[in-house]
Amino acid sequence: MNGPHRPRVVRTPAELSETTAELLDRRPGTLRGERRPSLGFVPTMGALHEGHAALVRSAHEDNDVVVASIFVNPLQFGERTDLQRYPRQLDQDVELLAGCGAEVVFAPSETVMYPDGPPLVSLNSGALGERFEGAARPGHFDGMLTVVAKLLHLAAPTVDAGFRCYFGQKDAQQLALIRRMVRDLDFPAEIVAVPTVRTADGLALSSRNRFLTAAEGEAALVLSRALRLLEGRAERQEPLDLDSAVALVTSQPLVELDYFEVVHPSTLEPLAFNCRQTPFTGEALALIAAKVGSVRLIDNAPLGS
Amino acid sequence: MNGPHRPRVVRTPAELSETTAELLDRRPGTLRGERRPSLGFVPTMGALHEGHAALVRSAHEDNDVVVASIFVNPLQFGERTDLQRYPRQLDQDVELLAGCGAEVVFAPSETVMYPDGPPLVSLNSGALGERFEGAARPGHFDGMLTVVAKLLHLAAPTVDAGFRCYFGQKDAQQLALIRRMVRDLDFPAEIVAVPTVRTADGLALSSRNRFLTAAEGEAALVLSRALRLLEGRAERQEPLDLDSAVALVTSQPLVELDYFEVVHPSTLEPLAFNCRQTPFTGEALALIAAKVGSVRLIDNAPLGS
Repeated sequence: MNGPHRPRVVRTPAELSETTAELLDRRPGTLRGERRPSLGFVPTMGALHEGHAALVRSAHEDNDVVVASIFVNPLQFGERTDLQRYPRQLDQDVELLAGCGAEVVFAPSETVMYPDGPPLVSLNSGALGERFEGAARPGHFDGMLTVVAKLLHLAAPTVDAGFRCYFGQKDAQQLALIRRMVRDLDFPAEIVAVPTVRTADGLALSSRNRFLTAAEGEAALVLSRALRLLEGRAERQEPLDLDSAVALVTSQPLVELDYFEVVHPSTLEPLAFNCRQTPFTGEALALIAAKVGSVRLIDNAPLGS
Repeated sequence: MNGPHRPRVVRTPAELSETTAELLDRRPGTLRGERRPSLGFVPTMGALHEGHAALVRSAHEDNDVVVASIFVNPLQFGERTDLQRYPRQLDQDVELLAGCGAEVVFAPSETVMYPDGPPLVSLNSGALGERFEGAARPGHFDGMLTVVAKLLHLAAPTVDAGFRCYFGQKDAQQLALIRRMVRDLDFPAEIVAVPTVRTADGLALSSRNRFLTAAEGEAALVLSRALRLLEGRAERQEPLDLDSAVALVTSQPLVELDYFEVVHPSTLEPLAFNCRQTPFTGEALALIAAKVGSVRLIDNAPLGS
């Protein structure tokens, strides 16, 4: 483990590829081709918290060099007010990244990423991008995949090296879509999922939690509690009894439930069996979204894996 | 120039990347990293003719190793009958490729390219993919970009090497869209356009020409004649007088004109000036499409470049 050196902050694709090529070439054994090095990449929108730190630490354990990116992608915001409200705190973010082993931070401007304005050619997230969060935020996942495709191309090593990209389980639909994009379009990248980081009382970390009042933060705990109910039943191979978990959430007056469903873990389609009544076997994903006060929160639990 | 060795035909992505890495590493000066080699890639749908040969020869002149791919992409065909009608002649194609300097032919099956059926995540060609050929063939350009994105990922060198991809000027809208995809999504590839190859009397080579009767083949010459009219006027900086060029085409009873327009060379949008009346300056692209008998033909001419 390196000490907390301040990472090198680069602003352009050319700086990024030069810097990573140089760092990868310097790793012991790689200059004379004795060992193939690997690059870990953690794309973020900044406003970093311990959830992001877990991604960077995983990347640091698995790879020779870690690059994180910070870019608030306008394409994935529906309303300009959401985009403007999104927190920006580069210095603080770079400090957090330094403590987790990132050596390079790619922080491009909007002009660097979209020199011609919104791309004419973009990614289409298809039916998988239309349900759940996609239903609440039209165009969000197309915009997300478009910037992730760009970032995977820009961050991919130009020297002979492995390439692993880290995403949080927290954004389960985003993760499923990125896995699918990489598989469907043969991106030369390995996608690594990192478990959701939670507060001691179970709330999934999110950059949005800062907008919760104390009472709302307390109320929001019902989401993870309901997911833990389902996890317990799945472990014991009982019927999931989703209705009682839904009732737990709707009993909380500060919480307005949007959806709470158990689906196939990679396609997010309905399960082939009735998980309410049939003893649980196999793998599934429980997805929940709710508004707590004015803040929309999402959480999920992989079941049976 | 190498002699006409029979290229190695590979069927899977793993074979492709191993073979190209091995060939690139063997090039003089590259093993000890003295010189960065480069890979030329020519994606095709087979049914090869002298137009494709020109792409492969260009790639062979510019690069250390040339890979061609042959894959009839079901995603870019509207009707299954068109897909079934498309000629398949692998042995003959490999022979032609051998004579032009291709060392590797990637000829994957449909199952290798689409193991899960049609991709859930795909490319969106946007407004640029909806006009001209896109209007005649809905979904065509999305399917084309999706397979080209896959092929660029699969064919990209895994060792430190340049990567140039060759496309014909003949399919001008396809070329504009691929250039735009590479630019908008930051693919690590350089796109090289190769001029249209024509018969001695001017007909643009196409795998569809084989479906023309002798009389239709004769009638089809009016397309390139009309384009040459415009080229002459553009060279002399005269008004293009598109109407007289259109009249030349419509005077031919076997030819049913679909469109004949002069547009911006990269966006394919209407020109900012009236090219019918204003003396021509700058750059533009003349696009023509027509049905000759039962065969739809396209042709084009870059003007003023």
